[in-house]
Amino acid sequence: MRDVKIKKYLKKMHYSYALGLIPTIELLRIKPTKAIKVLFKEQSDNYLETEKIKHLCRKNRIKFEYNDRWVNKISHKKNTYAVGIFEKYQAELERNNNHIVLINPSDMGNLGTVIRSMVAFNFKDLALLTPATDIFDPKVVSTTTGALFKINFKHYETFAEYSEEFEFHNLYFFTMDGEKKVKSAKFSKPYSLIFGNESKGIDKDLLILGNTVRIPHSENIESLNLAVSASIGMFEASH
Amino acid sequence: MRDVKIKKYLKKMHYSYALGLIPTIELLRIKPTKAIKVLFKEQSDNYLETEKIKHLCRKNRIKFEYNDRWVNKISHKKNTYAVGIFEKYQAELERNNNHIVLINPSDMGNLGTVIRSMVAFNFKDLALLTPATDIFDPKVVSTTTGALFKINFKHYETFAEYSEEFEFHNLYFFTMDGEKKVKSAKFSKPYSLIFGNESKGIDKDLLILGNTVRIPHSENIESLNLAVSASIGMFEASH
Repeated sequence: MRDVKIKKYLKKMHYSYALGLIPTIELLRIKPTKAIKVLFKEQSDNYLETEKIKHLCRKNRIKFEYNDRWVNKISHKKNTYAVGIFEKYQAELERNNNHIVLINPSDMGNLGTVIRSMVAFNFKDLALLTPATDIFDPKVVSTTTGALFKINFKHYETFAEYSEEFEFHNLYFFTMDGEKKVKSAKFSKPYSLIFGNESKGIDKDLLILGNTVRIPHSENIESLNLAVSASIGMFEASH
Repeated sequence: MRDVKIKKYLKKMHYSYALGLIPTIELLRIKPTKAIKVLFKEQSDNYLETEKIKHLCRKNRIKFEYNDRWVNKISHKKNTYAVGIFEKYQAELERNNNHIVLINPSDMGNLGTVIRSMVAFNFKDLALLTPATDIFDPKVVSTTTGALFKINFKHYETFAEYSEEFEFHNLYFFTMDGEKKVKSAKFSKPYSLIFGNESKGIDKDLLILGNTVRIPHSENIESLNLAVSASIGMFEASH
């Protein structure tokens, strides 16, 4: 395992942080092989979750340590009582699963919320087209409340790279003037639900590659929030 | 009009700020009587929206002024080119409309996103049960991308205060173990869609007052994000 220095998160680091008791538990439960170390604040002893974390650490031979100063250095939030340090990773997407594809997502809160909704609606595979906001940023990890560790995600440089790898996936592009309303669209498995960047949407050239779907909304708003669109799309496709 | 000092936003102030060109346009278009003044950065002249803002200012006899230092004092974001200063206000909810009720919302991003989705799905009336995050905080106003000015909102101290004022509204409480799935629920107008606080949900004592509805999701996640739940609820009730 490469060296870990306790410092504020930077994108270039080979490791990141799960901030808080619940995200740390999820890290240790689901991706123990990626966990490097756990840091606690003294105050963490007031919470039952702390015992659970220690148990998981012992079981997986992961070190833990009390160090308030280090935790404060990593998280600016006073109520962060534990930090799970983990090695960054990617995972191949499952060929037979339905996928979520985000094209150049730029907002950390949106990305985190999409991942949380993915797990809620049983989507396990996320393709990210770069440039994309950093999925390992502790803010994203926190917003997912640990759901990040429950999905497979992989980065692609172009849409072609993704679509050639999964040539049998049926593509559904969500756009404002999509041909079918989401409630009348039929989603044939395996499918990919594709959402564009927050301000730029989806490049028109891509739309001929698949079906286009819209979530009808009033003209009094320019667009829906990305996490809202993606969540409604996932809910409708899967229910 | 009471005095306005140019300084960073504080909750106790009687005025707030719409940050950015689009939110400022929406303020001047929809709530011109609440607009106090507009501030521009020099760089705003590169944008077409600036002319539109000036036009709206002249039409409504609202002063505007170029002052980079003041804009920077109010907004920490470099790409804020205009600030619309406005008087805080409330508006009575419409008796015949369907309502959204948020019980003690605590996250600014969620509140802003709910308001954006309200306008998208044609909900015009929002009841907020206090304590609630500050709807006038410039962060909330920004997240709504101007949608805040398109809705009526009013604060209530207790649920009883709200439900007595609108005794003929049919109440639909969204909870994790609600009786009806959202897709099979029938929403009889006029109705109120009610969502609880991000971590505490809805007090069980209230549920006997109306119907309970759930958005089915996997057990791999504790709950959906509040803005996601509310948006799915609104979409389903109105489509």
